[in-house]
This record gives sequence, structure tokens and C-alpha cells, in this order.
Amino acid sequence: MAGRVVRNIARADASVIDGLARAGVATVHEAQGRVGLLASRMRPIYPGARIAGSAVTISAPPGDNWMVHVAIEQLRDGDILVLAPTSPCEDGYFGDLLATSAMARGCRGLVIDAGVRDVRDLTQMGFPVWSKAVFAQGTVKATLGSVNVPIVCARAAIEPGDVIVADDDGVCVVRRTDAAAVLKKAQAREAAEESKRKRLAAGELGLDIYDMRGKLEAMGLVYE
Amino acid sequence: MAGRVVRNIARADASVIDGLARAGVATVHEAQGRVGLLASRMRPIYPGARIAGSAVTISAPPGDNWMVHVAIEQLRDGDILVLAPTSPCEDGYFGDLLATSAMARGCRGLVIDAGVRDVRDLTQMGFPVWSKAVFAQGTVKATLGSVNVPIVCARAAIEPGDVIVADDDGVCVVRRTDAAAVLKKAQAREAAEESKRKRLAAGELGLDIYDMRGKLEAMGLVYE
Amino acid sequence: MAGRVVRNIARADASVIDGLARAGVATVHEAQGRVGLLASRMRPIYPGARIAGSAVTISAPPGDNWMVHVAIEQLRDGDILVLAPTSPCEDGYFGDLLATSAMARGCRGLVIDAGVRDVRDLTQMGFPVWSKAVFAQGTVKATLGSVNVPIVCARAAIEPGDVIVADDDGVCVVRRTDAAAVLKKAQAREAAEESKRKRLAAGELGLDIYDMRGKLEAMGLVYE
Amino acid sequence: MAGRVVRNIARADASVIDGLARAGVATVHEAQGRVGLLASRMRPIYPGARIAGSAVTISAPPGDNWMVHVAIEQLRDGDILVLAPTSPCEDGYFGDLLATSAMARGCRGLVIDAGVRDVRDLTQMGFPVWSKAVFAQGTVKATLGSVNVPIVCARAAIEPGDVIVADDDGVCVVRRTDAAAVLKKAQAREAAEESKRKRLAAGELGLDIYDMRGKLEAMGLVYE
Amino acid sequence: MAGRVVRNIARADASVIDGLARAGVATVHEAQGRVGLLASRMRPIYPGARIAGSAVTISAPPGDNWMVHVAIEQLRDGDILVLAPTSPCEDGYFGDLLATSAMARGCRGLVIDAGVRDVRDLTQMGFPVWSKAVFAQGTVKATLGSVNVPIVCARAAIEPGDVIVADDDGVCVVRRTDAAAVLKKAQAREAAEESKRKRLAAGELGLDIYDMRGKLEAMGLVYE
Amino acid sequence: MAGRVVRNIARADASVIDGLARAGVATVHEAQGRVGLLASRMRPIYPGARIAGSAVTISAPPGDNWMVHVAIEQLRDGDILVLAPTSPCEDGYFGDLLATSAMARGCRGLVIDAGVRDVRDLTQMGFPVWSKAVFAQGTVKATLGSVNVPIVCARAAIEPGDVIVADDDGVCVVRRTDAAAVLKKAQAREAAEESKRKRLAAGELGLDIYDMRGKLEAMGLVYE
Repeated sequence: MAGRVVRNIARADASVIDGLARAGVATVHEAQGRVGLLASRMRPIYPGARIAGSAVTISAPPGDNWMVHVAIEQLRDGDILVLAPTSPCEDGYFGDLLATSAMARGCRGLVIDAGVRDVRDLTQMGFPVWSKAVFAQGTVKATLGSVNVPIVCARAAIEPGDVIVADDDGVCVVRRTDAAAVLKKAQAREAAEESKRKRLAAGELGLDIYDMRGKLEAMGLVYE
Repeated sequence: MAGRVVRNIARADASVIDGLARAGVATVHEAQGRVGLLASRMRPIYPGARIAGSAVTISAPPGDNWMVHVAIEQLRDGDILVLAPTSPCEDGYFGDLLATSAMARGCRGLVIDAGVRDVRDLTQMGFPVWSKAVFAQGTVKATLGSVNVPIVCARAAIEPGDVIVADDDGVCVVRRTDAAAVLKKAQAREAAEESKRKRLAAGELGLDIYDMRGKLEAMGLVYE
Repeated sequence: MAGRVVRNIARADASVIDGLARAGVATVHEAQGRVGLLASRMRPIYPGARIAGSAVTISAPPGDNWMVHVAIEQLRDGDILVLAPTSPCEDGYFGDLLATSAMARGCRGLVIDAGVRDVRDLTQMGFPVWSKAVFAQGTVKATLGSVNVPIVCARAAIEPGDVIVADDDGVCVVRRTDAAAVLKKAQAREAAEESKRKRLAAGELGLDIYDMRGKLEAMGLVYE
Repeated sequence: MAGRVVRNIARADASVIDGLARAGVATVHEAQGRVGLLASRMRPIYPGARIAGSAVTISAPPGDNWMVHVAIEQLRDGDILVLAPTSPCEDGYFGDLLATSAMARGCRGLVIDAGVRDVRDLTQMGFPVWSKAVFAQGTVKATLGSVNVPIVCARAAIEPGDVIVADDDGVCVVRRTDAAAVLKKAQAREAAEESKRKRLAAGELGLDIYDMRGKLEAMGLVYE
Repeated sequence: MAGRVVRNIARADASVIDGLARAGVATVHEAQGRVGLLASRMRPIYPGARIAGSAVTISAPPGDNWMVHVAIEQLRDGDILVLAPTSPCEDGYFGDLLATSAMARGCRGLVIDAGVRDVRDLTQMGFPVWSKAVFAQGTVKATLGSVNVPIVCARAAIEPGDVIVADDDGVCVVRRTDAAAVLKKAQAREAAEESKRKRLAAGELGLDIYDMRGKLEAMGLVYE
Repeated sequence: MAGRVVRNIARADASVIDGLARAGVATVHEAQGRVGLLASRMRPIYPGARIAGSAVTISAPPGDNWMVHVAIEQLRDGDILVLAPTSPCEDGYFGDLLATSAMARGCRGLVIDAGVRDVRDLTQMGFPVWSKAVFAQGTVKATLGSVNVPIVCARAAIEPGDVIVADDDGVCVVRRTDAAAVLKKAQAREAAEESKRKRLAAGELGLDIYDMRGKLEAMGLVYE
């Protein structure tokens, strides 16, 4: 049921969150077993942003951004707004004024399975957004939604306080309680990749590094 | 019926048009009551362009760009070409040669609910295009369409001479006869936003600035 | 049937390939009679790349990138990897490690009718990719596909060794045995366009340069 | 601006409307010069319906069906409701209760560039709907739209009182003032087609009936 | 992490489940506060089916239907299989042989955010399927997924044992522990609708029955 | 290059073709190693048709159906028309008159990666069509295409004379020279399926029939 605002949500440790940001979406996604990715339609409005933060979630009716105002009050330093409309919508729920307000509360960015506008201003402000559309269509403030409730956003189930990681590859969610363990795995993965990268750059083949030839032959691969 | 070219179309005042360009799509769209936006699939081929101009409209058969040549003759300084195919099409109706010709006539850009090509050249020339696709597919010159007739382009009804505003947020159309009034409202809106921006940047909440708390409570919003 | 790797494929002459790169997608596509374009969904991960190379083709199951490793061994200097999944898929088959390996083998880029990840790294490495999605979704190595077999990729039939041309306008394929002839036509076309560009820039109209007025009138075009 | 209801709209002659229904969408579309078709996404909820009627138009906010109630009061016998959301939406604005009400007012059907629900009931009631989606998603009654204003619905500009023709091929709009003339052309077209159908059924070729061989040869068609 | 099969899941009461089937998707969706709907792309392979059952969930890799076999063993009488691929896929995971097996275990139908095949056979067998595609593309059995874990299927979060309701309007999920309460509300809603249906059929307007005129006027609705 | 009509094409044996029709799309697709399927967007205009025939291919410009007339002359008894537009298009290239003509030449149906119209008439005539859209949009006869040349239609490469199999599951192409061998495999597959169907219907599990338990355990599947 709509109309709920949960004020006290748990958040992951700040250093863990920042570590996940440095690891990036692809590594975090792999490190936690290839789960948690949001749909590929979620694209950044400008290249180069790489952030992580705690999800303040918004469930909003189509074409109604009232709950964004409610959510901004719930923001703490280091949070990310995550909005899922209750039915598919691409209206522009969010623009430069709301970004100004969110930034004043320490918000690191917005993930929205709908539209965003004022993208030139947002780019200049350095407020990153991942959205399914850039669309100036205005919204109303007439119907309640909820803040900090579990949502499904772009194929991913997200709980308030989960860690959102976002960069040029898209957006990934990490369960709050898994965040520290995922960070460790991500760092281990990065370390392991580094040596592989050097060998590959030197001309060694993945076929040999990963010892694939035998299995491929056993599966029946034929060279002609 | 296809096969018509209207030569004398009325245009809005140049200073009004330029004012609308400065206001930008999102503000103009709001100022005129949240109408006139083209569909979100209309994206710029490069970021940063912000233009307004009088629409020279083209209704063209799918995969046939003959009427673009006809339309270019009708261009006056400050115009924008607006092309809607008679059925959905993403072929590349327009490239660097046509842009060269259009620029020589004072054209400020192209809005096309189809494809465009030579986008690297167009970017270097500084000729902005908003399109639904980048696609090199060539077109023929075999069937008539019309120029400067009313069209529907990407969800918006457009009359020749209407003012087209386009920037990173997309494209918006303003009725020619409404242009001056819309500009006034846009400027008023911008002025009003400026003070709100400062208050929001200082940490005030929209909930308070817009006095929303009472209404939210009356609607039944519950804080947990 | 899956499970085949063809090792010896013929390639076009290197100077022809490089000439086609300079001509670019739109010109090559026109020069060969408006055929060979890949679907418009194939977009570059960063602007400005302009390459041509010989296709090393990959037919891969959905969500399985094993054959990419197999294909990399087949790369020669100047080749381009071209991957078509056996059914529609947008998973991220390819990232920075595979790009490192491919670059070490002289690969000029990737064309993939699926997803790619690590796009920030790929951009920094200068390894261009044309894909239908940016998506970090990981893939498995469990099922055979084939390398250097004929494929259909994004609406285009591609044979191993065909010349792939790719730039900001998209991707085009040229039959290996047609490459030299297409290059000649492309160069002729560029030369012809140059004089037209000057005339158009000077304000002459396409209607006159191409002598269209008579035919338009005969077709019934009416000026009002 | 939203919030307007136009009560007195002109309608075409009933016998003309019924004649257009008998002619059907494809014939009417051809008869009026291949204009007026709504987008192909507009599909009937059940096969076999073939209707025509006067458009009572609705411009409604996304996810808000309040104006449908307002529009039903404006219905007269033989009308068709035509709803366009102000931004793309697929919510279920309309179900069996509204259909019951509309039928009681003589409404012949609904054309909606959004969703519809209770389709089993609507099918049993014989109330035909052409929509872009079947979707049970509920809507609110919170924000004003307008009734009997010009709208753009699924690529077509529609004025209140225009004639809507709908069948298994989709939906077509005929300008109210053109309706009688279009009907005549449609009937002439049907008569002409009848003789062609017999000749084609007897094995004659369109190439001969329409005398195409000479023109094809002149264009360069080569038989191998 | 993939590779889990949960064998003992709780299910709702059979009479509650059957009551929800009778209420249907639109009513159940409204009764529980307009939540729980799956995306509109989920369409039945034949019209007229109306079922409810307990969800046996499947998380499966793209193009790999191995877990369907695993899931069938977990079926009990009255269950519904619900499959979500781990990334977007439209392959045909399911056909007549699997349906034969599932029916033998008492399965009432399949909800799959991917493809299905043998739809003529499935129709003749009376085994209903809601899917995003009909597609014969075969799948492999090479990679593990999971059975009876929480999934996100077509925009809806689904837990094993939740009640799935499906009919011509689409698919809705009801939390297992809410099922009885939702059924009561659905039945109350149906009763309330019955009297309204009669009044509407008699020509009364929703404007009057729901007492909307005052609020519309207060909002500024203008009749012209 | 467009403008070619190949008159003499080889066709598969009629009894083989008819056998493939009886086997149906899903079985044929599996029998030939899971290749040859057309994209899932190719849907029949009415349920229940199940045909096979020799492909007479058409490559046509967008919105131009001239080549359909040319192709009809090339039809022989048992053929199927297969049309691919040279760029994406959904116009209605084909209706009841062309169907009348094609049927008079023995044509069994149409596969078109574009639109079709007059679907009610086509249904009554029993002329099956698989298309990506139903759309009444009219086409012109102005530009050449080709007949009986290799095409790519809806993701599949098709040669003239290849066998097209089409039913409620979609459309599949079989190489002409493979047709007899594929039929044998299809029949063997059907025979093998029959015994499995009986065992599954009796309640045996695929897990046991296909002996999957050991491999699943080895892969790490865990039952909880």
C-alpha cells in the first residue's frame, strides 16, 4: 500500500561503500555471483561518473513526483535516490531544482526507471543520473507513493539501505548485509585480474591461461 | 494528399524565438502548460546544442528524401527543418551535403523522426540534429511528399511556422501565435526558480518551501 | 551445427581495407548500392572511432562467451571481431581483459549484437566497440559455438574475411571479393561530392544541381 | 491547457459513418490518400469487430482515468471514445464498468493509446477496444485532463467529431468534413477492386492488369 | 548464488487460491492496493484461461532450461511454474513434453518471462502459458540456476509459495500470507461493483454515482 | 544491387516439403541443430495454419510493394513468398488482392518482415501470413527491388528455393539441400519423443528419464 515513509534505515559502512565504488559495477556484479544488475536501459546522462551509496528508495505513481520531495528529507550524506514508478513511465520526475536540494543533503546521485530533465544543468552540477529516458515531460503532485520501502527497479529488487553502485556500465545493487563480503571478493577479483591482464597483454591466450583447450576438445570443438 | 509546397508561412518574432532558445525545452514546456513535447526517442547527435527556430515542415514517404531538397528552398534565416515520415522509418534521410545546403540558407538545425547520417561531419560543422536514429541507410527520390503542411512528428502536432525549441532535454513545439506569451511565462518561471534554487541549495526542503506537509498528512502519508 | 573453428580465411588487401576506413560507413554503403548496413541499434561505445578490418566471426550461444577466447587465437593484425548470438541476447560477452588479449593480437575492434562491459576501460584503451547494449551481465563458458562461419549479425549476412567498416554512423559489411571495386566507387563518390559540397555551400540548391524541378512538376508537385 | 470539456461538437452524417464502417480501414485509408492511420501498435482485443463512429476525444494524464467519466456524459449514440495519454502510458484506464456505462450511452467502442483491462468481460459484452496494451494496472482520479479537444493519438491528429473507423487491420481517422467524399471514393475503389479480384483469381497477373512490364523494364529490371 | 533448490515451501489455502482465480487479475490487483501486477508483455498463448496456484519459482540462465526439470519434481497439485531468466531472453524454454510432465504433477500452468513453443499442442492440452514471446528457439542444459528462491519476474518480486493469478488481463502475484485477506477484499469489491454495474447499465453516470462533479469543478474543470 | 529477377530456382522434393510441414517448426528447428529460426516478432495473422513450401524471395524497398507483383509471376504451386524490406518497415505491402493473385498461382502463404493488411479477408480466404505487424499503411510502386536473390529476413539468411516451415510457433528455414536429411532427423525425433511423452504423462520425471541427477549433483546443485 502506498503512503508510507520509513525514516530509520540501516546503512552499510561508509568505507565499504566507497570501496565498492572504486571496484565498479562489472567487478561488483561478478564478485557477488552475477546478481543484482539493473536492466541495460539504465544509462548515465553523462560519461565518467562512478559512485556508490545507500539507497533511499521511492515508489511513485506514473507522472507524479511528489514523493521525491518527501524522500529528499530522508537523505543522509552519501545516499543515492532510487525511484521506481508503479507502472512503466518515462516522464521527467527530476530536474535541476530537485538535484540542488538533494545535493544540499549530501546525495550522490539518482537512479530512476523513468525520465530525467535539465540534463545539461545536472551535468554542469556534477550530479549523476542513471535513467531509462531523458524527457522533459512535467509531473504532478497529487497522489501518494512511498519512501524507503522495498521496490523493484529495472529488474532488480532493492531494499532501502542496500548499496547502489553505478558507473558507465550501468547500475548494480548489493544487499546491505553482504556489502563487506562482496567488497572483499571484488578486491580479490581485481588482484587476480591484474596478473591475467599482464599475461594477456603479453600475448598469452585465454585458452592457455584458463586451460580451456582440453575441455573444448572434449566438448567436440573441431578446427578446420 | 501529398504533393503540396506552401511557400509563404508566417513566423514568430525573431527576438521571441531567441528568447525561447535561452529558456530551453524544460522551462518552455512547463511555461505553456506541459504540452508540446516531442517523444523522448528524439535525441541530439551531440550534446550541448540549444536552439530555437521556425518550423519548415516536411512530410516524406518512408525511405525517400526528395522533399528535403524541396524544403531547403523554402528555408529562411533562423528556420529549423522538421521531418516526419508518413510511416515509421529510420532511414538516413539527411547527411553532410544536405546540411551544407541547409546551413547556406540559414537553417539552424534538423528535427527528424527518422534517421540521420554523417554525424561526425555534422558535429564538426556544428549543425545540430535531433533524431530517433543514427543510420546510414540511403534513401531514394521517387515519390512526392509535402512541405510546410501540418504534420505529426514524434507525438507532437506541428504547424509550419511554429517555434521549435531543442536542447539536451529533447524537442518542444510552441504554437507561433502563443510564442510571445509563452516566453513571458518562461521568463517569469525562471525568475521564480532562481530564488527557490538558492533556498534549496541552502538546505531548505521543498516540503517546506512549497508547504506540502499539511496536504501530505491529509492525504494519509504515514511516517514510520 | 555449432562447434566449428575455421582457421584459414582469406582477407582483403590491407590497403583496400584502410581505404574503406577512410571513406567511412555512409560512403561505402552508398558506393556498394545501399547494401550491407548493420541495424541502427549497433552504436559505438565512444564517439570518433573510424575503423575497417577483416571479420573474424563468432556465433555464440546466449550468455556464453567461451567462443570469444577461441576466436582471439584466430585473430591476425588488422582483424575485427564480429559476434552474433544464436538468439537475441544483451549480456556483456566482452570486457577489458578480452580487449587486452584481442589488442595484443592486433585486433582493431569489436562488433557485437549483444552487450559489452568495462566501457570506461575500453574507452581509455582506445578499443572501439559497436554493440546493441552496454550491460555488465556476466556470461558462462559452457556451450560450444563456432568461429569463422557465416553469420547474420544485426540484419547483415557476414562471411569470415569480409571487410567491416565502422564509425559514428554505425557498421557496414563489404564482401571481401568486392572490396577493391567498392573502394574505387567510394573514392569516385567522394570526389564527386566535393564539388557538390562547394556549390551547395555557395547557396546553390540541390533542386538545380540535380535538375529536379522538371521531374517534380511532372509528378504533380504544386507550389501554393 | 488541461481542464476543458467541449460539449457541442459536430458529427458526420450517420449513414456516411456506417458506410465507412462497411468499407473498412484499409479501403478508407487508401480512399483518402493514405493518410489518417493510427500506429500499428493499436490492436483489437478480439478479432472480427468492424466499427465506425464519431470521436469523443480524451486527453488524460498518465495513470489517471478521471476524464473518462467526464467524457462518457458527452457521448451520443454512435460515438467512439478516443483516449490519448499526455505522456506514454500503458495503464488500464478502462474496464467492464466503464464499458457498461459507455454502452448505455450508445458508445460503439474505445480507441486508447494506453491499456485496457477486463478484456474477457468486454469481449463477452461485445464492446470492442483497440489499444496498445492489455494491462490491469489501476488508475487514479486526481488530475484534470480535457474532453473533446484536438489530440494526437498513436501518430494521428484527431479532432472531436472526426470519424473513427476500426477493424482487424487497425484504426483510421477521417476528417469529419471529408467523410462523405471519402466514402464515395472508398465505394468507387471497392467497385474497381471487384473486377480486378476476379481477373487475379482467374490467374491474370498484376504485371499485366496494371501494365507494369514496360515501366519495370525502363527502370532497368533484369530477368536472369 | 545459483544452484539451490528449496524443497519445502509453504502454500496458501487451496480454497483461497481458487477464490482468487474466480476473482480474476484485475479485481485481485485492485483489492490488494494496485500492486503485484506483472508487466503487460506477459500474454496468454490462448484466450479464456483463468487460473490461480502456488508459485514454484525458477531462476534460470539465458537459453538454459535445465532447472525446469528440477522444478517439476518440486511441483504439487495446484502449483504454477514461474520462470525468470537471469538476463533478458526470449528462447523457448518450455514445450509440450515439459507440459506433459508438469501436468502429470498437477501443475496448472506456466508464467515465463521468456519464450514458449509447441503452443498449438499446449492449447490442445489445455495447459495455459503466459509468456513474453512465442519462440521455438531451443535451449541447453549446461548451467545451474535455482528453484524456489525469490525472483523478480516481469517487474514483480515473487516468493515461492506466493499465489499467482492469471487470466486474459495478464498475471498478478499475491503474497502467500496476504492471500486470505486479499480474497475477502476482492469479494467485497465484486459485490460493490455489481450494484454499480446495474446503475451504470441503466444510464446513470459515474459522475453522479461517485459524486465527482463538485470535486471536478473545484479543480477548475470548465465546460464550454 | 537491386533490379534482378532470378527465374529458375531449384526446389526441394514436394514430399519432403510436406513432411517438414507435418513435423512443424519446433521439431524441424531442433532436428537441424537449432538453426534457421526467424525472429519471434514473426507472428501468424490467425492461429492453426501449418505450412511448408519453397521460398520465392523478395527484397523490397521500404514502403514499396512493386516487387510483389514481379514475384507472383515466379510462383509455382507449393511456393511461399518471403519478403524482407531493405530497411526496417512495417507498412502493409500485401492485402487481399495480392493474396488472390498468389493463391491463383498455387502460393501457400506469405512470410514478411513488415506489415500486412486485409487480415480479415485473408483469414476467410485461408491464406496464412506471418508478419511483424498488421498495418493498413499503403505502399507505392516506384523503386526496384529484387526477386529470388538471397535475403536476410527476420534474423535468418534465406536462399530462393529454401524450404520455409511455418506454424503457430513461428517460421523456420531449411536449406534446400539439407531438407531430406532434416526431415529424417525430424521424424526420428518425433518417434523418440513419443515414448518419452508417455513416460512423462505417467509421472516419470525428466530428471530420471534423461539421467540428470548425477550431473546436477556434480555441478553442485544443493537441495535444501
